[in-house]
Amino acid sequence: EIVAAVAAALGNGPLQGKHVLVTSGPTHEPIDPVRYIANRSSGAQGTALATALAALGARVTFVTGPALVPPPGGVAVVRVETAAEMLAAVQTALPADAAVFAAAVADWRVANAAGQKMKKDGTGQPPALAFAENADILAAIAGMTEGRPQLVVGFAAETQDVVEHATAKRLRKGCDWIVANDVSPATGIMGGSENAVTVIDAAGAESWPRMAKDLVARRLAARIAAALGAMADVEASGGDI
Amino acid sequence: EIVAAVAAALGNGPLQGKHVLVTSGPTHEPIDPVRYIANRSSGAQGTALATALAALGARVTFVTGPALVPPPGGVAVVRVETAAEMLAAVQTALPADAAVFAAAVADWRVANAAGQKMKKDGTGQPPALAFAENADILAAIAGMTEGRPQLVVGFAAETQDVVEHATAKRLRKGCDWIVANDVSPATGIMGGSENAVTVIDAAGAESWPRMAKDLVARRLAARIAAALGAMADVEASGGDI
Repeated sequence: EIVAAVAAALGNGPLQGKHVLVTSGPTHEPIDPVRYIANRSSGAQGTALATALAALGARVTFVTGPALVPPPGGVAVVRVETAAEMLAAVQTALPADAAVFAAAVADWRVANAAGQKMKKDGTGQPPALAFAENADILAAIAGMTEGRPQLVVGFAAETQDVVEHATAKRLRKGCDWIVANDVSPATGIMGGSENAVTVIDAAGAESWPRMAKDLVARRLAARIAAALGAMADVEASGGDI
Repeated sequence: EIVAAVAAALGNGPLQGKHVLVTSGPTHEPIDPVRYIANRSSGAQGTALATALAALGARVTFVTGPALVPPPGGVAVVRVETAAEMLAAVQTALPADAAVFAAAVADWRVANAAGQKMKKDGTGQPPALAFAENADILAAIAGMTEGRPQLVVGFAAETQDVVEHATAKRLRKGCDWIVANDVSPATGIMGGSENAVTVIDAAGAESWPRMAKDLVARRLAARIAAALGAMADVEASGGDI
């Protein structure tokens, strides 16, 4: 936070003048007033990434579900609970130069969430829960025909065939990069302090060694800065012709 | 904790020599390796109660789901995740002089939890989740024919017709007392620092004013100590005849 504040004050980070949107944490999908569907995302990787981007001078909007770790300082924090709220917050936060979707968003919500606490009725039969598919935030933003961020980065939390699944996901979602990791319980990554990611872009898959989540964040922030800088160079030279 | 330690060291609390079992927090029921069903219990009331019982000299076994608040010091902590694990931990912790079931236990588990992360299959159809009813921990212990704790206390988190539902619950479960509260989101009780409870026993319903959860805990601990003391007196005089 101090580094971010200093970089911002000096106005000399490589992301100075850039707006970067980061989503983080889990979403919670209500079943009734007291029950909900959650996931094991702690928000640690997204929080570290927002910190690292701000340290490089970016103006960061941080859209976060109910995470275990507190949001970073020096960024604009938007708190949401459900996937639908997260999509709305993301749309409100645009335009952005880059958008990084690190949140673990629920694929489904409970379509018939109850206004009162569901009770056992003595029959031993559970209440029937009907599910509806949530809007795909990553695909929605990656597919924007107007006002799309220059760089759209998704995350893929997989438990098997990580690179294969993530490579397919990049094409299916239409995003520029996918940061993939293995969240099998045995890895201790989800909820832990370390991460081992593979960054997949149009050129292929680049596997990074396992390291602390804030080191992953700094390396990713530097890669984002380099990519936006290269895009700016292309635009500038294009303008000269 | 200091009060509890002092009381235990002095050996002069009214619950000295008594073993009290307390369950606390939510349970999490897995859907797949990364998703689960949760509830909004923070564990604050159960934690405060364990602290208050230990302060009166009780030896406390504290069986807790994944709560937001840390467990108290000076008690034996048993951490569990699912309702099934909680039941097993409770059975292992018996015998006890009193058992207080403050945990918000999931009524249902996912019967077909997946070993790998469930993925969208492109059809827009959610995976079919089948639910199974969890064992009823309160009813199981309250209904023990041998080795039943002398005092079995349940909690009832309701969102409507609180006293009516809780009175029926006491009879249905076979427990001695029900501590009922209204967990409608508007009350701010679930996850908050205050509670407004009604204690229901064979004599009727006793509504306490809204107060801090640790004051509710101290009052409830004193009521438990008085009840166990009265039972001991009856037993003693019974033995004299």
